[in-house]
Amino acid sequence: MAERRFLPSGVITLTTDFGLRDPFVGVMKGRILARFPAASVVDLTHEVPAQAAEEAGFWLARSFDAFPAGTVHVAVVDPGVGTARAILCAEIAGHLLLAPDNGLLGAFPARSLEPTMHVLAESAYAALGIDCVSATFHGRDIFAPVAAELAAGRCVPADLGALLGEWQRGQHERPAWDQGALWGRVITIDRFGNLITNIEGAALASLSSPRVRVGAHVAKLHRTYGETRAGELLALVNAFGVLEVAIAQGSASEQLGLGRGTLVEVREPGK
Amino acid sequence: MAERRFLPSGVITLTTDFGLRDPFVGVMKGRILARFPAASVVDLTHEVPAQAAEEAGFWLARSFDAFPAGTVHVAVVDPGVGTARAILCAEIAGHLLLAPDNGLLGAFPARSLEPTMHVLAESAYAALGIDCVSATFHGRDIFAPVAAELAAGRCVPADLGALLGEWQRGQHERPAWDQGALWGRVITIDRFGNLITNIEGAALASLSSPRVRVGAHVAKLHRTYGETRAGELLALVNAFGVLEVAIAQGSASEQLGLGRGTLVEVREPGK
Amino acid sequence: MAERRFLPSGVITLTTDFGLRDPFVGVMKGRILARFPAASVVDLTHEVPAQAAEEAGFWLARSFDAFPAGTVHVAVVDPGVGTARAILCAEIAGHLLLAPDNGLLGAFPARSLEPTMHVLAESAYAALGIDCVSATFHGRDIFAPVAAELAAGRCVPADLGALLGEWQRGQHERPAWDQGALWGRVITIDRFGNLITNIEGAALASLSSPRVRVGAHVAKLHRTYGETRAGELLALVNAFGVLEVAIAQGSASEQLGLGRGTLVEVREPGK
Repeated sequence: MAERRFLPSGVITLTTDFGLRDPFVGVMKGRILARFPAASVVDLTHEVPAQAAEEAGFWLARSFDAFPAGTVHVAVVDPGVGTARAILCAEIAGHLLLAPDNGLLGAFPARSLEPTMHVLAESAYAALGIDCVSATFHGRDIFAPVAAELAAGRCVPADLGALLGEWQRGQHERPAWDQGALWGRVITIDRFGNLITNIEGAALASLSSPRVRVGAHVAKLHRTYGETRAGELLALVNAFGVLEVAIAQGSASEQLGLGRGTLVEVREPGK
Repeated sequence: MAERRFLPSGVITLTTDFGLRDPFVGVMKGRILARFPAASVVDLTHEVPAQAAEEAGFWLARSFDAFPAGTVHVAVVDPGVGTARAILCAEIAGHLLLAPDNGLLGAFPARSLEPTMHVLAESAYAALGIDCVSATFHGRDIFAPVAAELAAGRCVPADLGALLGEWQRGQHERPAWDQGALWGRVITIDRFGNLITNIEGAALASLSSPRVRVGAHVAKLHRTYGETRAGELLALVNAFGVLEVAIAQGSASEQLGLGRGTLVEVREPGK
Repeated sequence: MAERRFLPSGVITLTTDFGLRDPFVGVMKGRILARFPAASVVDLTHEVPAQAAEEAGFWLARSFDAFPAGTVHVAVVDPGVGTARAILCAEIAGHLLLAPDNGLLGAFPARSLEPTMHVLAESAYAALGIDCVSATFHGRDIFAPVAAELAAGRCVPADLGALLGEWQRGQHERPAWDQGALWGRVITIDRFGNLITNIEGAALASLSSPRVRVGAHVAKLHRTYGETRAGELLALVNAFGVLEVAIAQGSASEQLGLGRGTLVEVREPGK
């Protein structure tokens, strides 16, 4: 058995594209509680757009450290379920993450968090008594029981399979400087219609009064929504550490007609 | 007091048509925790279409056994709330289910799971200190406190009322063979737009390469979504054990324009 | 340290306008569990219309007492986040409530529940080790950790800041008698499309067979939905104690085309 670095907190988070309309998330929790009754299971989000593995990774990489060290994070956005795609167990800063090998976990190295990665072996399932696996719902049949065993402290990543050096990094594009501007993209839209980008707030440190352009619109950088008037376009570094374009008390996405993938340009005026 | 067969796990699941927009589910949990602080309450689904008792039953009958034995499952899809309709406590395979007598629980015998059924008596409420019952929110005022008492192990079904032989079985239509084909229906649409039918996977065992027809469309049976290409129509036996018609990485419901109640025909080609 | 009146139950409720699409609620729970692993966190609702502080207050004031005494209720509907608006800690009937000073908590005196109110001081944050506060997500950075400390019994409201006499009461309009009728408004629409008003059921006690008018439509008062036929317009005093206008097995809001703010008139026929 490997050296025990991970000290389980008993907390398990769930991130999926299952939505809450069907009982999919509920039955995952049932399987977790059947193995580990003391688990504290928290929904991170289940409204990731269907099969948007990288968007799930984006949120997970920017949310996981709000949880206590020793948390097991399960991310099931898995169009390849039932095919030969691997399931990974990543260890990052005292947290564990279970996810399919489809680029989702590439969001961590994109944030300069380099995981120790194990790949789940079929033989490990048998050792854990996981013997009735459907072709289409590994969230319930593999991810849930494995997360329960890890969170209960009854196994560690090294028990699940071999160390892995090469795995899918995905399309986690990094913003780049070009022609005096920093170029990034809108990664996701939140419930308020804010356009959330992949541009790190830290990358703007060298600019004294940056202007942020999305489509034909230009926004000034503010510190908070409350500094602006209702209806005003603004940019700010949000609480997840990335640049966001918003309309105060409105929906930037709807009112500007912009969505995921939109190019975002940040530059100092007059340069 | 009756012989104790049910050994409570402390887990309570909730299935309703209340949605999550209003605080209805939250206040049910409040009432549960007020009586049984150690309860582990899990949402199965709250997005059952309004008053679709049989659809709630369908999901519950196919999800309950993901939870540990000793779980109390509460299902409140209850258009008759406040009228003389009875409230039932079913015992099935070491689980308890609380639901109105409106056909919801008929989904269990439709799966060949025959419950022991008790009917809740007004006198039992008084014995449990349930004395302030509204006319319209029995989920909060009856179901929640009764579930808490059962889950806490402070009462058993026989304490709640008499054994019941006759109760509402509902419209849980079973698929039937006719003219060389097996005929069933679409029961529900999941969040991905998959058409989920009432046809048991086991019923297809005798067919070597069945074709599944919904509306004017014919699908081949696959093992998993990943075997097909994006946009391809497929059928599969899903993780809940029933036949489902899907479009890989698309929405069968939207793209085919089909919904609940659609006839589904399964036959061997050339027969 | 102040006299200890509040005896924590370990339960924390969350009411926000964050929705469940993004991980905002999940990360709040993470921060709570990081400080107080035994917390039992319950979602009241996260679908308050964006920035509708008074609607959040309405539901909270009518739901909080379903929870055990000793519960900490967190309400984050907070358009002024990051500005100088204060954060309040109210003590009401053995419960604590944390909310911004923006009128949300005015729903309690509107129900004749007069809180003891403390205002959170910056110095209290430091004492609790809250030292990394973003400009836009106080739910995660202030409300969650403070709620955890209160629920864990490690601090009391008086530790957080000074007693406060004057705070924002908001626009919690009370219904009024005029021209022989009681006039109120639709405050919120629930998931079933029911029009929920600010008229207390108790205010109707003097009327023998009241008629309720919304827009051009007049409804009779019933005790429960089940007394009427599908499609029939009805009024009833709902389980939260206020008058509601509904269409049995339908959506009053959609079918009548009426929404929040609609005037509601209650009068005895012929008067």
